Amino acid sequence: MFFKFFPKNCNFFELFEKQVVYAVKAAQFFREVVPQGRITDMTLSKVKAIEHEGDEVAHTIIDQLNKTFITPFDREDIYALTMEVDNIIDMINSIVSRLRIYNICEVDHNLVEFAEVIDESVQAVARAISGMRNLKNAPAVAEACVEVNRLENVGDTMRDRILAELFNNHTDPITVIKWKDIYQDAETVLDVCEDVALIVNSILVKQA
Amino acid sequence: MFFKFFPKNCNFFELFEKQVVYAVKAAQFFREVVPQGRITDMTLSKVKAIEHEGDEVAHTIIDQLNKTFITPFDREDIYALTMEVDNIIDMINSIVSRLRIYNICEVDHNLVEFAEVIDESVQAVARAISGMRNLKNAPAVAEACVEVNRLENVGDTMRDRILAELFNNHTDPITVIKWKDIYQDAETVLDVCEDVALIVNSILVKQA
Amino acid sequence: MFFKFFPKNCNFFELFEKQVVYAVKAAQFFREVVPQGRITDMTLSKVKAIEHEGDEVAHTIIDQLNKTFITPFDREDIYALTMEVDNIIDMINSIVSRLRIYNICEVDHNLVEFAEVIDESVQAVARAISGMRNLKNAPAVAEACVEVNRLENVGDTMRDRILAELFNNHTDPITVIKWKDIYQDAETVLDVCEDVALIVNSILVKQA
Repeated sequence: MFFKFFPKNCNFFELFEKQVVYAVKAAQFFREVVPQGRITDMTLSKVKAIEHEGDEVAHTIIDQLNKTFITPFDREDIYALTMEVDNIIDMINSIVSRLRIYNICEVDHNLVEFAEVIDESVQAVARAISGMRNLKNAPAVAEACVEVNRLENVGDTMRDRILAELFNNHTDPITVIKWKDIYQDAETVLDVCEDVALIVNSILVKQA
Repeated sequence: MFFKFFPKNCNFFELFEKQVVYAVKAAQFFREVVPQGRITDMTLSKVKAIEHEGDEVAHTIIDQLNKTFITPFDREDIYALTMEVDNIIDMINSIVSRLRIYNICEVDHNLVEFAEVIDESVQAVARAISGMRNLKNAPAVAEACVEVNRLENVGDTMRDRILAELFNNHTDPITVIKWKDIYQDAETVLDVCEDVALIVNSILVKQA
Repeated sequence: MFFKFFPKNCNFFELFEKQVVYAVKAAQFFREVVPQGRITDMTLSKVKAIEHEGDEVAHTIIDQLNKTFITPFDREDIYALTMEVDNIIDMINSIVSRLRIYNICEVDHNLVEFAEVIDESVQAVARAISGMRNLKNAPAVAEACVEVNRLENVGDTMRDRILAELFNNHTDPITVIKWKDIYQDAETVLDVCEDVALIVNSILVKQA
């Protein structure tokens, strides 16, 4: 087993920043798409392209991790961070697919609101990850993590309110089935963002 | 990175016992609440308060873990144990919220039965965790873990029977959607208890 | 804490090959059962017996892991690999149970197709795991992992197409609820196979 100590061409911080860009792109695109009310072939292929590019960076990170002996922070934190950022992108892709599979053709104002919260949360995740390079950014990173947590709580409350509405107002069970899944997925994106914030936070604490 | 060796004010065993108290409180409260058949504002805020207090202990444990160099057992076991005990409390909170969101106003004898099994399982989890302090408790800890596994099997069988009943007897799809989610959540609490027992067991084996 | 260095009676590679045999058996049995269209008591007890035998090997692996100091590859990879192979068997068992609980009595050609893809994927997983013993098998192992990934993509596309059909063609919500769960479970088996391939791959890269 030959490990490289600090291989020249591997900078985990840079790679993480590169990966999170695709999460930001996916969230921005999702926010643009939801108010259009219908997922076209082009929309679907565009979000899949973003996911694919994000996957490539994730594979590069894991490959580098497996080949590197000394890492700037705990190996399991690097692994978990990559997987969870990948998860954000996958989940957004999965909601877009679901909107298409369920043949949703209307603009839903609740989902528009969710897409905005998701976009804000992913932007805060990106700020947290960019800040990790330098310990002097610790306050800004901590602030971004607090924001991600706040938005997860916002999402929780939104989902509970929206689901209660859904069950109160709709008598068509197929509609209930479809939207229950979609809102649940939307809230899960915010949960995954919170998981990322937890990992970033714990990396910060260990280095303090 | 400055780690403290056995910091004076950190006793992981004590912290775990403190955390599991909130799981026990949540399970007991759930057992009391289900036979009342309706989730009031007060019920909801009480279970959220228990969850909040449990969260604080979880955060203390993770903070201590990040600052401590030598731990009484594997770091990843400490982390996993905290997260899973937190998970028990979250799941109970989530069922109570769901009963409210789904506007359930009747006493369901199947859920009453589930709440009893959950309460017993969480009590066994608490016995397992309290016993971890001292290796001479190993037989009692092992027994508690066996009990948790037994109750998970009981829960599995209950869920399968109850779901078969639900699909056979109900023609209203909205009712099916609601109760399928609730029973699934209830069974998941027992799965999480089993995960805790697995972790405790593996800590025990490593120290034997 | 007394660890044995390379305990005589413990060969992790052998144990993994033994465990994956039960995943292969479960997948083959599932493929045979689905075209029969109805889950009998005997079918149910046979798949549960396979799961039980697989569980025993999983417990042996975890016990050996806890008692062994030097392992042929990272402890967490051994743990994750055992848990995920166990997960494959559990998921197949869970689909069979669900077919019974939902009282499905018809042959569904989509599920027949899924059962074939699952069987192929689990066979590829078994090839990957058997190859791990010897680094000279690395190309064959890598090829098997690529096949597992390919089949996961096939499953994704199948599920999306089948769910779209389900929502377009069925007006009975109970039917939609049942089959949505079943297809989702089927796709999850392929996801878990992909997780196994990821772990095997990362073990390979670390040893290269």
